Amino acid sequence: MSNTSNADAKLYGLLLAGEFAACYRLVDESAMAPTTPDRIAIARLIAAEMAHFEELAQQVTAAGGDPEAAVAAYAKVFDDYHDVTTPSSWLEALVKMYIGDGLAADFYAELADAMPSSVEQVAASVMGSTGSSEFAVDRVRAALAADPSLRSPLALWGRRLLGEAITHMQWVLAEEDAVMDLLFAGDGTLATAATFFDGIAARHAQRMADLGLA
Amino acid sequence: MSNTSNADAKLYGLLLAGEFAACYRLVDESAMAPTTPDRIAIARLIAAEMAHFEELAQQVTAAGGDPEAAVAAYAKVFDDYHDVTTPSSWLEALVKMYIGDGLAADFYAELADAMPSSVEQVAASVMGSTGSSEFAVDRVRAALAADPSLRSPLALWGRRLLGEAITHMQWVLAEEDAVMDLLFAGDGTLATAATFFDGIAARHAQRMADLGLA
Repeated sequence: MSNTSNADAKLYGLLLAGEFAACYRLVDESAMAPTTPDRIAIARLIAAEMAHFEELAQQVTAAGGDPEAAVAAYAKVFDDYHDVTTPSSWLEALVKMYIGDGLAADFYAELADAMPSSVEQVAASVMGSTGSSEFAVDRVRAALAADPSLRSPLALWGRRLLGEAITHMQWVLAEEDAVMDLLFAGDGTLATAATFFDGIAARHAQRMADLGLA
Repeated sequence: MSNTSNADAKLYGLLLAGEFAACYRLVDESAMAPTTPDRIAIARLIAAEMAHFEELAQQVTAAGGDPEAAVAAYAKVFDDYHDVTTPSSWLEALVKMYIGDGLAADFYAELADAMPSSVEQVAASVMGSTGSSEFAVDRVRAALAADPSLRSPLALWGRRLLGEAITHMQWVLAEEDAVMDLLFAGDGTLATAATFFDGIAARHAQRMADLGLA
């Protein structure tokens, strides 16, 4: 019982740290937004991420964890991911937002299938309110229509984002036995980590198509 | 009727632009936050400001205005204010947050006394959910207790913030006759702009005392 609770707290703490890192990276990248509507859209995304953060923070506390400690504990791996995938342009930032939002949604969706119902409900609720990064799709498609030569470098960028995300997720999971057990040793659908990452890669391909980068 | 509506749209537009500028300035200044709890607190403030932004944006739209156009129209004066009051340290940023939040609250409170009831309700609602910058008071007081020599320069900084805020508010109002009329030509308590700014200065002194900077 206390082990399960401990694993729950760790998993929620991991999700919380990821949410916080995503939020702060939006804060950093907001400086690239070229127009007032873009700046407004980014500020709305930041607010949406913080709403998820608050929901997850409540779960960390309920599972006996400390939200601030959780953010601090996992900050490095998320910061590392963002550091190696720092966009060099507003378009790269938009692609990263959409792809990153989608990867997070996938991660939650896989969790929701495999996890105890308490976690499942929170995951569904947190992801139920996303979709605000859809604006990125419109902006990227418009840019590609105006200049098709952007397609090839942005497609490469998208592939790099997936590769780095999977590498960094694996680092996190390798260090957290309790979370690994929770994800892959239960009676859920996540038989292996390989299945988990294959599913994420398949949906990433769909998102690249959404952006016009297939 | 259409003149009143026009003035309402302008006033809400002005409030909206101020809210947006405050939000983005928090985004910029968040880079100074030294610890994880500080970074979390700032992210929560950003989310709270964006909630106010959404509420005001609805009012701009309801009054026949365009939120994005309003933000763009008034961006310069708010950016100018923030540019001449850029904090040089985390403590200066905290003082600015608390003082700036208070000045905005005063502005809304004066409006709520003087304005048609529709504006009054929105102002009360937007300001009813502030107070999250109270964390700034704790941080500043703790820093002053640890190093009393910080008091004098921070007190000077606080006075400068008030002076610049009033100067910039006056520039905005001087350019917006319709808003001036709405504020000072009705049957409300705001007989003159001088009364308005005197009231704000008096409450500023109280806030400096709150921070331990009296």
